[in-house]
Amino acid sequence: MSENSPPTRTVFFISDGTGITAETFGNAILAQFEMKSRHVRLPFIDTADKAHQAVRQINHTAEREGRKPIVFTTLVDMEILKVITDGCKGMLLDMFGTFVHPLEKELRIKSNHRVGRFSDVSKSKAYNDRIEAINFSLEHDDGQSNRDLEQSDVILVGVSRSGKTPTSLYLAMQYGLKASNYPLIPEDFDRRQLPPALAPHQKKIFGLSIHPDRLSEIRNERRPNSKYASIENCRMEVSEAEAMMRRSGIRWLSTTTKSIEEIATTILQEIKPERLMY
Amino acid sequence: MSENSPPTRTVFFISDGTGITAETFGNAILAQFEMKSRHVRLPFIDTADKAHQAVRQINHTAEREGRKPIVFTTLVDMEILKVITDGCKGMLLDMFGTFVHPLEKELRIKSNHRVGRFSDVSKSKAYNDRIEAINFSLEHDDGQSNRDLEQSDVILVGVSRSGKTPTSLYLAMQYGLKASNYPLIPEDFDRRQLPPALAPHQKKIFGLSIHPDRLSEIRNERRPNSKYASIENCRMEVSEAEAMMRRSGIRWLSTTTKSIEEIATTILQEIKPERLMY
Repeated sequence: MSENSPPTRTVFFISDGTGITAETFGNAILAQFEMKSRHVRLPFIDTADKAHQAVRQINHTAEREGRKPIVFTTLVDMEILKVITDGCKGMLLDMFGTFVHPLEKELRIKSNHRVGRFSDVSKSKAYNDRIEAINFSLEHDDGQSNRDLEQSDVILVGVSRSGKTPTSLYLAMQYGLKASNYPLIPEDFDRRQLPPALAPHQKKIFGLSIHPDRLSEIRNERRPNSKYASIENCRMEVSEAEAMMRRSGIRWLSTTTKSIEEIATTILQEIKPERLMY
Repeated sequence: MSENSPPTRTVFFISDGTGITAETFGNAILAQFEMKSRHVRLPFIDTADKAHQAVRQINHTAEREGRKPIVFTTLVDMEILKVITDGCKGMLLDMFGTFVHPLEKELRIKSNHRVGRFSDVSKSKAYNDRIEAINFSLEHDDGQSNRDLEQSDVILVGVSRSGKTPTSLYLAMQYGLKASNYPLIPEDFDRRQLPPALAPHQKKIFGLSIHPDRLSEIRNERRPNSKYASIENCRMEVSEAEAMMRRSGIRWLSTTTKSIEEIATTILQEIKPERLMY
């Protein structure tokens, strides 16, 4: 590596559950640093034995690299955490302890040190609702079905490849929302109206648009040199779709530079689905 | 509320981005407490004005409820954070500051205080790969297509409704992995072999099984009183599928009490897809 290369570290994510919380949060923190890092996931560390093994792995890395590894933990079992705290030569960032203890004081209740969020998911209503939402969103992808459309929490509309499918699935997966989506197609433009099945659900409809240049780029990856992907056709479709969304008074945004997380968050702010109210 | 009811608090999640990190992590922390809470998301707080508005909302809640609201923040802009810190009457849990400052010391580099992880996602290879993985997984759901099957990072097999589809989509959405899935059907059982298209990809195959009682329950929700959902048929299919997985020497797990996060994490540990190596 040249002298100008940013420093490299190994980062461990240790959890008694899946480690997904540790990793999601750790990645957000690490994104604040211009640094190359190697990631090692150590999920399901739920016995002292496994914790000792993790310590050996971390300390071995520390010696080999001559640098402290960064260790994010979301361990809730104090005995297992102690094995790591006592033995580990990495820089320990204890994500739970750091916030749980001050919260115990403020709330004046003890935390239950429960491992993981899912014990037997088949008995959890929230979890079953989430799986049902994923299935619903798949069955209502791309205007496939109008059955039970009124059960939708959100209905997305937009031209083909404007981001409807990944956003619908994300809304289902992350928030347990039933998200349908409908393509806007030349027939709709000719009729100058949204697909008729959608009329009774105006309040749940949200539009996705996209810059024609970007749309043409995305479509060309799938069908190179087609009329479908041509910049002229993309310009026409986007302009017709945006005009229709304005006429129909539905809210919409441009997805061109936005991630599905950002699109989903904006939709939730605008649509405020009842099911998300606590 | 009865005297036995756990205390109720309002919890705010404040972020200059989507707030998804704040909420994911905050929920994991709150799951440690037996407490009912009301959640308020305040995403895209990226100006001092919006921060002042957030402070007013929090302080209003504090007065109305006579209890400190809990406030999780993932603000990276120090000036915006200062507006919250100075004015807010809630209990502030500054998730970034808490870990970023010690990391700056250890790494001897300054954090860049960059807002959000996605600036212009259309230019990010990792992001585009993730969208491509979602599309790939959708197109390779339920054995729909053998095209480009060799591009799969993971191939899931199992009887209908054993959890293949949600797990495939989760692997794509969370990890950017191309996950195909194939149903095991009576034809395969008669032939006593995995679907022929899968033969060259043995190392990427992972099996999902499920307890027949639970399978029958799930199938009955979709097709009540059908042969498909009957306990006899479910027992037969599960037993044939498990025998086949054993014979073929592929790794598998039972999804009965597991969440898609737990299933996905176990699959990653076993399959170790190359694309996940850093």
